[in-house]
Amino acid sequence: MRRLLPSAPVTSLRVTYHLEVEAAEAPARAAEVALEQTVEVPRSAVTDPMIEGEVMGRVESLEADPAGGFRAVIAYPLETTALDPAQLLNVVFGNSSLHADCRCVDLEAPIELLDAMGGPRFGIEGIRKAAGIYDRPLTCTAIKPMGLSTPALADLCETFARGGIDVIKDDHGLADQQWSRLEERIPACLAACERAADATGHRALYVPNLIGSPERVLRALRFAEACGARAVMVSPMLLGLPFFWELCQRH
Amino acid sequence: MRRLLPSAPVTSLRVTYHLEVEAAEAPARAAEVALEQTVEVPRSAVTDPMIEGEVMGRVESLEADPAGGFRAVIAYPLETTALDPAQLLNVVFGNSSLHADCRCVDLEAPIELLDAMGGPRFGIEGIRKAAGIYDRPLTCTAIKPMGLSTPALADLCETFARGGIDVIKDDHGLADQQWSRLEERIPACLAACERAADATGHRALYVPNLIGSPERVLRALRFAEACGARAVMVSPMLLGLPFFWELCQRH
Repeated sequence: MRRLLPSAPVTSLRVTYHLEVEAAEAPARAAEVALEQTVEVPRSAVTDPMIEGEVMGRVESLEADPAGGFRAVIAYPLETTALDPAQLLNVVFGNSSLHADCRCVDLEAPIELLDAMGGPRFGIEGIRKAAGIYDRPLTCTAIKPMGLSTPALADLCETFARGGIDVIKDDHGLADQQWSRLEERIPACLAACERAADATGHRALYVPNLIGSPERVLRALRFAEACGARAVMVSPMLLGLPFFWELCQRH
Repeated sequence: MRRLLPSAPVTSLRVTYHLEVEAAEAPARAAEVALEQTVEVPRSAVTDPMIEGEVMGRVESLEADPAGGFRAVIAYPLETTALDPAQLLNVVFGNSSLHADCRCVDLEAPIELLDAMGGPRFGIEGIRKAAGIYDRPLTCTAIKPMGLSTPALADLCETFARGGIDVIKDDHGLADQQWSRLEERIPACLAACERAADATGHRALYVPNLIGSPERVLRALRFAEACGARAVMVSPMLLGLPFFWELCQRH
């Protein structure tokens, strides 16, 4: 089933790496990265024209970087990523991240990859809808520090809400610590916003911070929804991009 | 419910940061990191003795680094991590990772944290058991490159198995790409090892690479188990450490 020529133009993901190498080594180093991130075998071992044309990374350009070293643009066939967020990290960073002389500095994604990864699930319109504010800039603040008890954090929340803040989020350091358990904090802060709304007519949006392994985050998400939370926050690089992607796609 | 003094000795996580700063700035910079990774408010705003004693990071030592700059050891109360893998990353790297002059270089975990995070689920004994080899060093190789069809990869697998290799794993770049779908590759490579075992009496251990978002990896794991796979591999930094931790703990 070997095809002698690529059957169709291959869609590519273009990644720019800064290579901290001398001019004499630059072309070979760029070619090495292109191989290592895809086929990961010596160039001489790639004898199949299909693999050469439709699988292997290809150095598209190589130029001196004004800051020193070189910039190499490498095109990876899109199918190497399997359109999956974890495998995308693998192709872009995989083995190259082990080498101190190679650093990813840019990425140009084809539309097929952008479609598969998706963007913000709700965007600013979704935040405005959850906050119920459409006609002016939104104000936002965070409750902190970790170590405060749930009643103290809820008091802060009520103070901010009465002061007219639109969006009040947990500090990113507020997790499920003994000082303020998530399952106490969410209902307490939502109630604090309701009390402020009863007094002022302005209903602030409380945004709990969900952090943990996937099971913990999904359990906390269900709990927050059941309590009536209209928004939650998560930190993509702490949860891991693949789980973050799944959260945005499915929940 | 405010306590005036810490009620019990606080167990700490000790993290060493390299600070690329001048001697005159080093003490203030180290103190700033300790604050930012925990309470994330100005020092003057921490007036509660409990928060000062049991929540706030504390600079334990600060010394010149022979390589230039300084090394600061900061003790974080263990409870700041909530014994959760995502929150652990938050406390160690969180905001400090945004600053080019600060780099985490070491970490000393108390036994309570090590117990909560766990270590290898099966270890070398588990690999020996899955491979059925106890009395000599194990041999291992990988099938590659991406782009080969499932039959070609299974052929490689059979060749290696007949040659006496004990553990044959998917290259880390083999995902669920069109060239070799995971649901074809797993049974094909397991069957290849069985054919080799019938011929030689030596049953190699085929280890499929599971990569993707959590749902995809868990689906692939169930499929691999149903096919009779005795081991699988995953890449922690591609899946994200919190999901990797959950996989090791629960599956």
